[in-house]
Amino acid sequence: MELRSSQRPDLLPKSWYNIVPDLPEKIPPYILPDGTVVKPEMFHALFARELVRQEFSDERFIKIPDELSEYYLQAGRPTPLLRARNLEKYLDTCARIYFKYEGVLPAGSHKFNTAIAQAFYNKLEGVKRLSTETGAGQWGSALSLAGSLVGIKVRVFMVRASYNQKPFRRILMETYGAEVYPSPSTITSFGRKLLQENPDHPGSLGIAISEAIEDVINSGGEAKYSLGSVLNHVLLHQTVIGQEAIKQLEELGVGVEDVSYVVGAVGGGSNYAGLAYPFLYYRLRGKTSTVFVAVEPRAVPSMTRGEYRYDFGDTAGLTPMLKMHTLGHDFVPPPIHAGGLRYHGVAPSLSILVNHKLVEPVAYGQREVFEAGVLFARLQGIVPAPESAHAVKAVIDIARRYRGSCERPVIVFNLSGHGLLDLKGYEEYLYNALPDT
Amino acid sequence: MELRSSQRPDLLPKSWYNIVPDLPEKIPPYILPDGTVVKPEMFHALFARELVRQEFSDERFIKIPDELSEYYLQAGRPTPLLRARNLEKYLDTCARIYFKYEGVLPAGSHKFNTAIAQAFYNKLEGVKRLSTETGAGQWGSALSLAGSLVGIKVRVFMVRASYNQKPFRRILMETYGAEVYPSPSTITSFGRKLLQENPDHPGSLGIAISEAIEDVINSGGEAKYSLGSVLNHVLLHQTVIGQEAIKQLEELGVGVEDVSYVVGAVGGGSNYAGLAYPFLYYRLRGKTSTVFVAVEPRAVPSMTRGEYRYDFGDTAGLTPMLKMHTLGHDFVPPPIHAGGLRYHGVAPSLSILVNHKLVEPVAYGQREVFEAGVLFARLQGIVPAPESAHAVKAVIDIARRYRGSCERPVIVFNLSGHGLLDLKGYEEYLYNALPDT
Repeated sequence: MELRSSQRPDLLPKSWYNIVPDLPEKIPPYILPDGTVVKPEMFHALFARELVRQEFSDERFIKIPDELSEYYLQAGRPTPLLRARNLEKYLDTCARIYFKYEGVLPAGSHKFNTAIAQAFYNKLEGVKRLSTETGAGQWGSALSLAGSLVGIKVRVFMVRASYNQKPFRRILMETYGAEVYPSPSTITSFGRKLLQENPDHPGSLGIAISEAIEDVINSGGEAKYSLGSVLNHVLLHQTVIGQEAIKQLEELGVGVEDVSYVVGAVGGGSNYAGLAYPFLYYRLRGKTSTVFVAVEPRAVPSMTRGEYRYDFGDTAGLTPMLKMHTLGHDFVPPPIHAGGLRYHGVAPSLSILVNHKLVEPVAYGQREVFEAGVLFARLQGIVPAPESAHAVKAVIDIARRYRGSCERPVIVFNLSGHGLLDLKGYEEYLYNALPDT
Repeated sequence: MELRSSQRPDLLPKSWYNIVPDLPEKIPPYILPDGTVVKPEMFHALFARELVRQEFSDERFIKIPDELSEYYLQAGRPTPLLRARNLEKYLDTCARIYFKYEGVLPAGSHKFNTAIAQAFYNKLEGVKRLSTETGAGQWGSALSLAGSLVGIKVRVFMVRASYNQKPFRRILMETYGAEVYPSPSTITSFGRKLLQENPDHPGSLGIAISEAIEDVINSGGEAKYSLGSVLNHVLLHQTVIGQEAIKQLEELGVGVEDVSYVVGAVGGGSNYAGLAYPFLYYRLRGKTSTVFVAVEPRAVPSMTRGEYRYDFGDTAGLTPMLKMHTLGHDFVPPPIHAGGLRYHGVAPSLSILVNHKLVEPVAYGQREVFEAGVLFARLQGIVPAPESAHAVKAVIDIARRYRGSCERPVIVFNLSGHGLLDLKGYEEYLYNALPDT
């Protein structure tokens, strides 16, 4: 391994952890609107075969191919596990706060972990192009980079409101060589229909997913679809995060049984699952009593206020229906800065864990989230992505309970990305222009 | 050391390397316009005493205080040494290309290495506030963060053109808690004078330095001044980069005598010195024959076309005069995106090395530099800062000479920062709107 000095390839796991066989109940089958159960083969038009196999797999551990491990190493995995000592001191807490920092990955967030896996398998299977959606752009930029690295074209439908207001993520995707269209776009019939109804349509993640899928269906087999969260295989790829964290904590003398809280933000659930599922492996076997806290924005409360029912993954209803906590596939989220958390549903696996009270959801407003983000930046130097700042806020609230306490609980959270391309939100907060949604 | 698992504190040097006693000739004294030689005491009004001591020191190694090493570790030092394998393959070169990646530091560039040292010593000496200038904002954001970490206020005069066109760096400084004024500002008499002459004055780095110094002089002893490049003590602090790189290369089986080229971009000279001076330590002792390449923009050609003479460090003439390669302190650089390279002079120590042909300067135009930056992003995942992209361009040109060669020279360069807050320049390049200055 000549890639990088001071790197620790031994901390990188050899397999992803698939939580599906360990869940307290089976994930209800994906169905069509008429109730037909979706078979794996029906997914082959959309996804690479290996990804479909992983989606429906009951294997507990799925081997990471060696070539893919190389990509992980090149991108800077294992990512650092850091202790937030300055935050601990500021809060005057006895809690020990550790965080996994995924923002060191080149596109700036955890999304690269699955982006490179999806690009890799699609390339292996001869796919020429990937089509996807993106909200604020973290997923889109990760897939654009992954496509550039493995040599596969990437087309991104970017929610029009973000496309117009936040050009930097769009430029980043273009710098990586991707084609980026504002969604609704004029290159799909669904997009054209929406633009006809409203030429200034701001778009949504659900709409962008619909467009990407339509684009794939009409590509004559040249393109496949790529999704950044929600599905099993996507969450699976993120489990490198938690597996590394467990080994890194061990090296610091913290056993998995010593971890009191695991905290993360939830959009579709992928960064959360990435950190939490490897810890849940032990919890589900009764070996730990870790509390799992999942944080969402009050403005998009799919876990705390959504219904658990079958719903579409997209707005047009092109995807199968998944049983999940959902606000409805036609839910229009307010324009909060945490674009990655503006999705109407959450992963089916995470929904089940919430139902069984193994994961505790909590919701926060935007102002208190940015307040936490600014505090973290000033104390620890890293400006958190608005999504990740939700986790920071929850960690602060937990840590404050242990002020002058004899207990020294360990809190671990996922700082899933940096906020350097989200500074507009920080400016609004600093200048009191941020609506408290 | 409980800070961070998978970190290698043993790679962090215990001392900075001071090249001054090893230079082929003495640095000419700093003088006043009337020829008076500036004594160290005359700097005490501007700088912390320890920094003045370092500025005039002849000690070859200056110990890094333990508390400061802790800050370096917390910020993520040692930074990774990476091999650009994809770039090598793409260029079909036999050269081995390694780079030190300083963009992982929290404010996104190498500037943190001296910012935290300067903030640390000023805090120790009871200084309440630091005043400084910034162009594009890398230096200003590093000092803002350093000030926040050690608990010292920071005031930044930001070149007005950048302040207006690139709000993100300004927001980053404010997120870290700094006060940021567009320069020329209304809070200094020099600024007011310039605004009276031209209310739309775009400002320059030289003007911003003048304002920061005036601000310090009028602070009644409360504030000190902080500079991001050029001076000996600033370059000194950056030598952690090259010292780490030498150890990291050794671990990969590359001895310092195997290094054929050391490449970096030059504004005032600090990132360049940071990587190159520890390698020059061996070159100056005849132990290696490494070629040192220093890259500057064709639009600001201080090394390739400037004169070697006494000049002021700022526009108003408030600083002492330094003997250096300069375009003149009233030189108005064109508005290239590499804001960190828009300075009229270069460090006196680097000027001497250029005079003695120990360092070879080369200049590039902006379009070819961004072309190299885009190529690097697509192949290696990291978007280089426009400043660092100058180094990338030179490395590509060198590596191309070893196509199908039997020689396998080692090229080491400094990727001093990421370009995530400079994507506007990349957009102009991608859309053919970048002037080829």
